[in-house]
Amino acid sequence: MAMVTVFRASISRSLPTSFPNLLSSSSNRNSIPKKHRLLCYAASSQTKTIRSEVSFCIGTHLIPHPKKVERGGEDAFLVSDYNGGVIAVADGVSGWAEQNVDPSLFPQELMANASCLVEDEEVNYDPQILIRKAHAATSAVGSATVIVAMLETNGTLKIANVGDCGLRAIRGDRIIFSTSPQEHYFDCPYQLSSEMVGQTYLDAVVSRVEVMEGDTIVMGSDGLFDNVFDHEIVSTVAGHGDVAAAGIS
Amino acid sequence: MAMVTVFRASISRSLPTSFPNLLSSSSNRNSIPKKHRLLCYAASSQTKTIRSEVSFCIGTHLIPHPKKVERGGEDAFLVSDYNGGVIAVADGVSGWAEQNVDPSLFPQELMANASCLVEDEEVNYDPQILIRKAHAATSAVGSATVIVAMLETNGTLKIANVGDCGLRAIRGDRIIFSTSPQEHYFDCPYQLSSEMVGQTYLDAVVSRVEVMEGDTIVMGSDGLFDNVFDHEIVSTVAGHGDVAAAGIS
Repeated sequence: MAMVTVFRASISRSLPTSFPNLLSSSSNRNSIPKKHRLLCYAASSQTKTIRSEVSFCIGTHLIPHPKKVERGGEDAFLVSDYNGGVIAVADGVSGWAEQNVDPSLFPQELMANASCLVEDEEVNYDPQILIRKAHAATSAVGSATVIVAMLETNGTLKIANVGDCGLRAIRGDRIIFSTSPQEHYFDCPYQLSSEMVGQTYLDAVVSRVEVMEGDTIVMGSDGLFDNVFDHEIVSTVAGHGDVAAAGIS
Repeated sequence: MAMVTVFRASISRSLPTSFPNLLSSSSNRNSIPKKHRLLCYAASSQTKTIRSEVSFCIGTHLIPHPKKVERGGEDAFLVSDYNGGVIAVADGVSGWAEQNVDPSLFPQELMANASCLVEDEEVNYDPQILIRKAHAATSAVGSATVIVAMLETNGTLKIANVGDCGLRAIRGDRIIFSTSPQEHYFDCPYQLSSEMVGQTYLDAVVSRVEVMEGDTIVMGSDGLFDNVFDHEIVSTVAGHGDVAAAGIS
């Protein structure tokens, strides 16, 4: 994989209401007895209000592989504000270059198709079906890993993942949810392909996580997660409040 | 935390149908070109059949902390065959012993309550609501981390997690899904408590993953995941086909 594609999406609420600081429970760390001495004195969450509608606030950042800067790398992505928001990354398999095939064409077409299908009735806001239909509509030769995340306005983040792209959901200073990469073996991820030998939407790992206002979603290709530790992602996110402006630096 | 509680649950299908070997795609590893040379020649999954009803086949294994063997440790668990199956672990916070409180009582009552509430109409097969009602019904003094997983017969595994218990979903030789532990800081996990200072069901991380026949679910307290690497869990699971008989050795 050739490029780091990073989505950093924070969850915002359409109706502002009182909400406790998600970091407050760890802010008085030094005064809290250790677990092995007694339980934690952390703020109760019973004052939390019922969620109203939430949606993404999205920023993106691309870092092409140094050797592939000229043609822009082999990643493609999709951003949509439909419903609570849709984000997706497709990462072209570089081996196609040896067959005189531009590895970026397949993921670009995949994301273009997905963009057109986001509101499709048959897709029905299901990321796995979006992958199926976007893949079926490709004509380019090549293959790509792909991850799609769709946010329902009630806070349900629905994810379908084929290969070694990834997603982290971060709440305060903690990762609450991670995807797991799918590889056949080292450096050979599950991938959608123009050929019959690849995987399909049926191979996607399909998962959901309930997110809330203030959470941050980081989505990227393996170029991010192979090179940046999770704790570095968390600390970087914590240091940059403005998602749309910051990206990952 | 004092004890390792491990659930190992494999997913079985009530109506046997043809199904490709989940490991087949990596069985001819040596003959597959590396990704950076070309795409993978792995078996297509397009021959997969539509899922019929699935359910758990469950085995359990307890290893009390050596210092706490006499009173059986501080973990409690729940197994139910309701719907596709329900498994849960609660891990008592040991610090209560210094207050002359038996740390095992609270998690035991929590799991006993949950066991009675599994089929509750208001719970409606929602693991987060099960945690809410089981917690509300406790009278013991103490606190515990807790994780609950409920399998729908269509293959949706619904998870609610407060603290540092964990769950892994394993497909073939790969982890397809992991929970993330929730801690205030090192060794101080999120926990349900008899006191107002603890967390509640609202602090649970709620997630779902779509599983299929042949998948293995490993659930345990932090005593497992703090001491056994994921790759060791995967290799142990791969070496023991009979879930109910094997446990984790």
